[in-house]
Amino acid sequence: MNLVLPLRRGIIFIVSAPSGAGKTTLSRAAVREIGGLTPSVSLTTRRPRNGEVEGIDYRFVSEEDFQRRVDAGQLAEWARVFDACYGTPRQPLDEAIREGRDMLLDIDVQGARSLTARYPDDTVTIFVLPPSFEELEERLRGRGTESEQAIAGRLKRARDEFRAYPQYDYLIVNADLADSLRQLDAIVKAERLRVARLREEIAPWKS
Amino acid sequence: MNLVLPLRRGIIFIVSAPSGAGKTTLSRAAVREIGGLTPSVSLTTRRPRNGEVEGIDYRFVSEEDFQRRVDAGQLAEWARVFDACYGTPRQPLDEAIREGRDMLLDIDVQGARSLTARYPDDTVTIFVLPPSFEELEERLRGRGTESEQAIAGRLKRARDEFRAYPQYDYLIVNADLADSLRQLDAIVKAERLRVARLREEIAPWKS
Repeated sequence: MNLVLPLRRGIIFIVSAPSGAGKTTLSRAAVREIGGLTPSVSLTTRRPRNGEVEGIDYRFVSEEDFQRRVDAGQLAEWARVFDACYGTPRQPLDEAIREGRDMLLDIDVQGARSLTARYPDDTVTIFVLPPSFEELEERLRGRGTESEQAIAGRLKRARDEFRAYPQYDYLIVNADLADSLRQLDAIVKAERLRVARLREEIAPWKS
Repeated sequence: MNLVLPLRRGIIFIVSAPSGAGKTTLSRAAVREIGGLTPSVSLTTRRPRNGEVEGIDYRFVSEEDFQRRVDAGQLAEWARVFDACYGTPRQPLDEAIREGRDMLLDIDVQGARSLTARYPDDTVTIFVLPPSFEELEERLRGRGTESEQAIAGRLKRARDEFRAYPQYDYLIVNADLADSLRQLDAIVKAERLRVARLREEIAPWKS
């Protein structure tokens, strides 16, 4: 009898980082390169930024629509950040865990905390750090999309968020995208081999 | 200020498997290919098999010498298997953990249990399975070094050992050496990124 590869539960990989550490670029590269990772598309009530596509970057909804989903218990977590709401739909996560598919979520510290509380056995959390504070500041300014005041707000928030790294499972220092992607790839491949994720007993032989 | 990569504790990677699952071949390939892994050389009181080299495969010692080391507390774990003793010297493990170097140990289920009890935060355990029972039996016979009786004993022991897999962190089904090596490589690289192994607080910026 050959070993039929055992079914395992799906894994929710959660990537968080201070704003500007490069987590969005890294997450997208991961979905493209690693394989077997479905991105979660968040809901938001904020307006699209330049180039953002409905259904890919976010699902852009009204305040009323958002509130209705919150009330109906359709969100696994949600939060108000500055003057907009962001939330993660519950159903795709539940289905992925049940069906043994893996998802990748690019989400802030508060959202990560809510999701690990809700799915303690099925989440793997990764914190991405910029190599230095100066580089973080440069990256934020380099976007050219925000006012000085907004940048100052993001920097302050980044400093606060940074302190959350000890709550995470893994730490990646994002100095080079290719290196960071290799590190994330190793984390994904290793976590898929965890005994704790097996759904049933395995038996390579009968007798 | 650039982030100085934080010091972390060394990791003791422990590979166990039923006899004949290919763990010795896999462990040696891992030490050769993955990098940064020092093998632990076990002590044993049994005689060298064909081709085994003192100080590489084992350190071959007398029963008296072995007992003296046990009494002096120099072994992290030891056991009698069939009619010989096997043991793991403590000092190289303690030094590796302290100095942030990683080791790879090819050790049986009982030894793995003793080591994880002694080093609960610094061990990572990996169970290697043969793809099938028939293949395991073929591999054991293929060695051509042992009597039918010894093979029957090993097969029985393999069945008992197999039941220990749920106590391990990771499971590798060793159907193909190159695939298994890639999986072990991912585990090693991922575990090196664990926040829990950082020895001190990290700070990418001062202010």
